[in-house]
Amino acid sequence: MNDEYYMKIALSEAKRGCGFVNPNPMVGAVIVKNDEIIGTGYHEKYGKLHAERNAIASCQKSIEGATMYVTLEPCCHYGKTPPCTEAIIESQISTVIIGSKDSNPLVAGRGINVLKKHGIVVKTGVLENECLKLNEVFFHYIKTRTPFVVMKYAMTLDGKIATRTGKSKWITGEAARKHVHTSRHKYSSIMVGIGTVLADDPMLNCRMPNGRNPKRIVCDTNLQIPLSSKIVETANEIPTYIATAAENTEKVTQLQKKGCYIINTPKKDEYLDLNILMTQLGSENIDSILLEGGSTLNYNALNSGIVNKIQAYIAPKIFGGSQAIPSVGGVGIDNPKDAFKFVNRKITVLGEDILLEFDMKEGE
Amino acid sequence: MNDEYYMKIALSEAKRGCGFVNPNPMVGAVIVKNDEIIGTGYHEKYGKLHAERNAIASCQKSIEGATMYVTLEPCCHYGKTPPCTEAIIESQISTVIIGSKDSNPLVAGRGINVLKKHGIVVKTGVLENECLKLNEVFFHYIKTRTPFVVMKYAMTLDGKIATRTGKSKWITGEAARKHVHTSRHKYSSIMVGIGTVLADDPMLNCRMPNGRNPKRIVCDTNLQIPLSSKIVETANEIPTYIATAAENTEKVTQLQKKGCYIINTPKKDEYLDLNILMTQLGSENIDSILLEGGSTLNYNALNSGIVNKIQAYIAPKIFGGSQAIPSVGGVGIDNPKDAFKFVNRKITVLGEDILLEFDMKEGE
Repeated sequence: MNDEYYMKIALSEAKRGCGFVNPNPMVGAVIVKNDEIIGTGYHEKYGKLHAERNAIASCQKSIEGATMYVTLEPCCHYGKTPPCTEAIIESQISTVIIGSKDSNPLVAGRGINVLKKHGIVVKTGVLENECLKLNEVFFHYIKTRTPFVVMKYAMTLDGKIATRTGKSKWITGEAARKHVHTSRHKYSSIMVGIGTVLADDPMLNCRMPNGRNPKRIVCDTNLQIPLSSKIVETANEIPTYIATAAENTEKVTQLQKKGCYIINTPKKDEYLDLNILMTQLGSENIDSILLEGGSTLNYNALNSGIVNKIQAYIAPKIFGGSQAIPSVGGVGIDNPKDAFKFVNRKITVLGEDILLEFDMKEGE
Repeated sequence: MNDEYYMKIALSEAKRGCGFVNPNPMVGAVIVKNDEIIGTGYHEKYGKLHAERNAIASCQKSIEGATMYVTLEPCCHYGKTPPCTEAIIESQISTVIIGSKDSNPLVAGRGINVLKKHGIVVKTGVLENECLKLNEVFFHYIKTRTPFVVMKYAMTLDGKIATRTGKSKWITGEAARKHVHTSRHKYSSIMVGIGTVLADDPMLNCRMPNGRNPKRIVCDTNLQIPLSSKIVETANEIPTYIATAAENTEKVTQLQKKGCYIINTPKKDEYLDLNILMTQLGSENIDSILLEGGSTLNYNALNSGIVNKIQAYIAPKIFGGSQAIPSVGGVGIDNPKDAFKFVNRKITVLGEDILLEFDMKEGE
């Protein structure tokens, strides 16, 4: 078996940590000796042991002279756990094959250097793109300290997220709606505008078996959220952030009593300044946001340049209506050449619906 | 080689007639003897010989006892050419394998019966779905005597066909725009609203190498089309229909002098009655329409129930804008359950763009 084969297994291991390790990266490791897998492990939960140590601990046979496949460069610094490079050196592993380097400034090639200094053979770049993609959230967050934002919407074939009367239940079918919950599990938070709360009174939880609820963020410029809304009523169970520009101390106190965190964010024009909000959320350890916004919030998010990825679920239906609600509203651009542009297309069929995913084009 | 193998070759032959045979069906035929292809042919042009006769004529070897694969049931009536069943019987072909039956009431199983009566072995239903799909236009037209309507639009990921300032050049890339011309070649006509003519002064021709120009139809309720527009100026070269509810005899005369056909269509509410227009166009031998409408015409077409198929080209861009032009406008529906629904998804990647094609759901 070749390096790619074992790295793929390490990648599968890594993905088992999805949703539980943020803002850490997902990491998987496989230990191989004489072409036999003698150990596997992954980073299971934020604050717990890293993949390398779990893989080493899983070995029943002698590990001396073995090869470790690990999706991300092993850390060499003391964080919540001691450095993985130490564990690797102690274990007498002779070769380490790495998927992607760690762009965390605390690691960034130093992990590799430490291993080499101790006579360990190191090879890098096996399935590098897959390993980088796996941790796009982590790499973004470590670099910018602001959340990786995924703009998600479900629309008709003519781009509508609601009819002219504002009705939107349902646009997509069951498979697509189920798929949304894998994203709610994957990303550490979900963000909506106050309009969505007032219209739908949603829970915004993750209804995937064994899923983890995302933290909830409501953009509520004028602090209109009802104390009786489901989100507020369950704020003690699921972390809930209300971002507002209003200075209504009485309501703030009431919301805090119910368990909400209030974030004071200044306005930019008539809406919250999303760039400042991202910095505020980043400092709360929120590494990623699934933006389930309405028409206006979607446009503001794009226009602020905070969007990293787009997920457009498309149903084989047409609503029509020049006054129906488009997936992205706001003022909009004037010239096609100024459009927001996307790259790295991914197409997924979900029942009768289609999911189109793209990354925001760099420099846009 | 099995029946499917030869029927696939017959299908490829049939497709060579695309764009040139309307309102006839595309038909291909392959003649096989001792597992060797000894002849092929297709219906090349409206009014010319049918596929079966061309295939027979192409044979250099003795045809006696051979098998013919033909995508559509051979005709048994005198039309522009004598019946194909006669040619088959005379040729001493012993077996005929048929893709799809002909729903033309003049044929409809009778072709098969004639062959059987003459001792020829007949097998039907080989690659039947492919053969039916190939001639969806023909089967629709023969049944309804109205054109098969394909609604085409190019939109952004947020469903816009133009920015809020009305600009739309360009949404999709070269590969997608090139692909549109295969449709202009395939369908016998192209239809636009007067808004498109006034805004873009288009030629609406087919710019595909060896392509055939579609007939042009302009929905021009109030007869606003400028005599100096490119369409009117070239009406002597490319058949051009102006459908109008206006009774401006002077302008009608001027347009007719320039070569335009004027169709008088009554209004329904404030627009042309598209159902009546379809009947009028059907009686002009127009079997199919590529509808390159704007927002309003697209909605009226859907609402009139004349649309059979949809082609949505989607570019990885977002315009935003609650006042930007959506692919389908008009009044729109009120409740998601009343949405226009589509089935039989086909996804084609065209450069950085995506083409989604669907059939209108029956009974919608």
